[in-house]
Amino acid sequence: MTGQPSQTIRVAVLGADGRMGRAVCAAVDAAPDLDLVAQVRAGDDLAASLDGVDVAVDFTVPSVTEANVRTLVDAGVHAVVGTTGWTDESRGRISDHLAARADHGSEVGVLIAPNFGLSAVLAMTFAAKAARFFESVEVVELHHPDKIDAPSGTARHTATAIAAARREAGVAPSPDATETGLDARGADVDGVRVHAVRLRGLVAHEEILLGNEGEQLVIRQDSFDRKSFMPGVLLAIREVVSRPGLTVGLENVLDLS
Amino acid sequence: MTGQPSQTIRVAVLGADGRMGRAVCAAVDAAPDLDLVAQVRAGDDLAASLDGVDVAVDFTVPSVTEANVRTLVDAGVHAVVGTTGWTDESRGRISDHLAARADHGSEVGVLIAPNFGLSAVLAMTFAAKAARFFESVEVVELHHPDKIDAPSGTARHTATAIAAARREAGVAPSPDATETGLDARGADVDGVRVHAVRLRGLVAHEEILLGNEGEQLVIRQDSFDRKSFMPGVLLAIREVVSRPGLTVGLENVLDLS
Amino acid sequence: MTGQPSQTIRVAVLGADGRMGRAVCAAVDAAPDLDLVAQVRAGDDLAASLDGVDVAVDFTVPSVTEANVRTLVDAGVHAVVGTTGWTDESRGRISDHLAARADHGSEVGVLIAPNFGLSAVLAMTFAAKAARFFESVEVVELHHPDKIDAPSGTARHTATAIAAARREAGVAPSPDATETGLDARGADVDGVRVHAVRLRGLVAHEEILLGNEGEQLVIRQDSFDRKSFMPGVLLAIREVVSRPGLTVGLENVLDLS
Amino acid sequence: MTGQPSQTIRVAVLGADGRMGRAVCAAVDAAPDLDLVAQVRAGDDLAASLDGVDVAVDFTVPSVTEANVRTLVDAGVHAVVGTTGWTDESRGRISDHLAARADHGSEVGVLIAPNFGLSAVLAMTFAAKAARFFESVEVVELHHPDKIDAPSGTARHTATAIAAARREAGVAPSPDATETGLDARGADVDGVRVHAVRLRGLVAHEEILLGNEGEQLVIRQDSFDRKSFMPGVLLAIREVVSRPGLTVGLENVLDLS
Repeated sequence: MTGQPSQTIRVAVLGADGRMGRAVCAAVDAAPDLDLVAQVRAGDDLAASLDGVDVAVDFTVPSVTEANVRTLVDAGVHAVVGTTGWTDESRGRISDHLAARADHGSEVGVLIAPNFGLSAVLAMTFAAKAARFFESVEVVELHHPDKIDAPSGTARHTATAIAAARREAGVAPSPDATETGLDARGADVDGVRVHAVRLRGLVAHEEILLGNEGEQLVIRQDSFDRKSFMPGVLLAIREVVSRPGLTVGLENVLDLS
Repeated sequence: MTGQPSQTIRVAVLGADGRMGRAVCAAVDAAPDLDLVAQVRAGDDLAASLDGVDVAVDFTVPSVTEANVRTLVDAGVHAVVGTTGWTDESRGRISDHLAARADHGSEVGVLIAPNFGLSAVLAMTFAAKAARFFESVEVVELHHPDKIDAPSGTARHTATAIAAARREAGVAPSPDATETGLDARGADVDGVRVHAVRLRGLVAHEEILLGNEGEQLVIRQDSFDRKSFMPGVLLAIREVVSRPGLTVGLENVLDLS
Repeated sequence: MTGQPSQTIRVAVLGADGRMGRAVCAAVDAAPDLDLVAQVRAGDDLAASLDGVDVAVDFTVPSVTEANVRTLVDAGVHAVVGTTGWTDESRGRISDHLAARADHGSEVGVLIAPNFGLSAVLAMTFAAKAARFFESVEVVELHHPDKIDAPSGTARHTATAIAAARREAGVAPSPDATETGLDARGADVDGVRVHAVRLRGLVAHEEILLGNEGEQLVIRQDSFDRKSFMPGVLLAIREVVSRPGLTVGLENVLDLS
Repeated sequence: MTGQPSQTIRVAVLGADGRMGRAVCAAVDAAPDLDLVAQVRAGDDLAASLDGVDVAVDFTVPSVTEANVRTLVDAGVHAVVGTTGWTDESRGRISDHLAARADHGSEVGVLIAPNFGLSAVLAMTFAAKAARFFESVEVVELHHPDKIDAPSGTARHTATAIAAARREAGVAPSPDATETGLDARGADVDGVRVHAVRLRGLVAHEEILLGNEGEQLVIRQDSFDRKSFMPGVLLAIREVVSRPGLTVGLENVLDLS
């Protein structure tokens, strides 16, 4: 939705035959400022597929994503990575590799993001920013009832960010006089209560409630469909070209300050 | 809010110096179709205060409320009772007493209600009516953080009514694939999940979520202030005069069918 | 979701090749107590397709639905009708036809419903029931931005039902001191304010807000997907067999009293 | 809620006998890091009341507030101003006055804020930050029915900020296929639709809805009580001491970047 670059960006999609990969191909195809120049599948020779590619989007599998990114960096291709399974260690290795290349003049950018949903990423970011101004904060996440884990990874991540922001600001824990009843779906994540609702008909939703005497701020996010990730992926493609080095998290290319 | 009776109803308030009693006195005073003719306090002679009274409202204390109601019935005065502490046994005794008097031609009505909040009573009633039509149902209650119990009595009552309605209709339990995480504030009440949020700034709120594939029904109720009980009390005063015998629960005089 | 009948109901679907018809076929097929015995398409001989059919579901087109229903009634087949275009006159003709047949012992039932979404029908019904107990009531409907009309038919229908219930109970209009600003999407429907939000990402949603001093009741309904109509259609199939004569509106087979 | 300064801040309250002034006095009194050293009323000699005062809070009236602030600046006292009626011109004069004094070494800070409600200020700020990432955005504000203007000033301010952010980012207007129905309470503010709900029981609430294909972000803010302004006032007192010059808007001392 942001201002369009003057020049078309040539995009390769890695994992182009996967569920997310196909959706990315369609979204890139439909964007007037992006040009889908390569669809790379498992077994294809990646290095040989990168001629004239500006940005590669990796939605492959944990076992190959790090090697893919290394190949992209060496080829001078910017990378947007949505594949899961990255650890502090693997991110550290890519960061070191980028730094080494930068010494030789490379300006390649790599963006690794666990979540490309703009509403999800913004909800989490705003909640963390607001957390230190309120006496109380709790999180409610709501999902379809076939989900196995509770609370959701997104809600845990949100609560962790809220807890860190409050700790840093020296805010006291949310008050709670309850003497009974710790038997509901959810968890205490770093001192932040997370409630997990499971309801047929829902997809993935998160609500952060922040309260002071006489006021409440509620930040709610609804993901109705996987299509919702595409605006975030496109935005990442457009931003990564001007952000050399490693960036982790879509929120860090949103210029929210 | 319903149609006004053609004749003024003369009202006595028992416990007129208590917090709720004072609010009832003010509300009765402000209603054009009601006439506040007696304010009875602890220590006053109740029987001697009932001359010309049509309806008495009892917001006293558990230790005296049953004796009060018995006195009212004997004096032929209808009773609206908001005092807590009633049990199946004490309600049974009043019911028997009313039946015995009815044999002698008495048409006195007694309404005992644990909750006069119209939005709370309607939310609970609608949720129970809707419960058998949905695959999933969960309850979220939200209160100020000084509350000691969780979940709230109202939420427990709601969940119990939902569970009974689903059991009677032969509905399967709400689906739930969760394998982790039962460590949040709340409870499983008769198979219905109740989540309890505690947040500074809130008063008393309840949300019932009902879901089917592709759809959701949410019934939410907010009590911001004790003033919210007054419309229910006034409605009870107007209805009890035409409902001989014992009625338990405001929902039973709302004609919701 | 209600109790299962002891015997399988044999179902025909008229308009089986349409979008809704296909969804109904799939839903009937998946229901253990229903047996899909006929799929009737435009051009098929309807009368010849009804051997052994208990209930027929009509999702055809306005130009043929009345003739279809007449054929079904004559064949002794119960009818569930979701086709639009019915008028007071065409409903009257079917009602008369059913009455004439009932004189000869027919117990055929016909259910014509403009909306099979359980959450939508329940929201509307509950809102109408609650409307007389609150000083204020307003309606907010939210839809995708490609919708041409505002407010939606469902919201207009809801507001009309609310207005009728309040008028019947002698309730004053919702208070409103506003002296400026009647330039937003929506309408005043029989004295009830209806606000229309249009937002990419949404499907069809309605929220009824009811308020008294110190309290609020909110009834919200979300339709995320056409699949949400199926539980209502299945319920209608199971109920119509025991409801001779004409019934208009799904709410009238829900036994909400 | 942020980290406490090591030293107590001595506070004067101007307009100490007004509704807001009294609330500020109570809040300052209750804060362990603030010391209420002067309560100034209409008619008092302001300049003579400022001995040893670090920060003065002005909740007086439009006719005197600019003169008050000038007196405070001259006395080297930081000012937090909640009085309404400021214009671009009066703010400009104070800014010039501060600049002139700064040339002589003054580090006095003045904070003028139209709204001290943290949830309201944060909702507006987050909505403006998020606005360029979504295809659609609309605003719903909800207030008690005695309010004369619609939409509310806060909602107009929010919509203006959203419109500016979208214009700057080159985002297209929110899509809208509606061909009927512009007769509801509310307005089109710079191309952003604002809906105004009026409901007994409510106080002041605002909801910003942002939508993309398959996702929604909702930022909601509830002001239940005037007490909700106090955390913002206290935060302003603590921040103004280290922000020389003129700051307009509480959001600019919240360090939200």
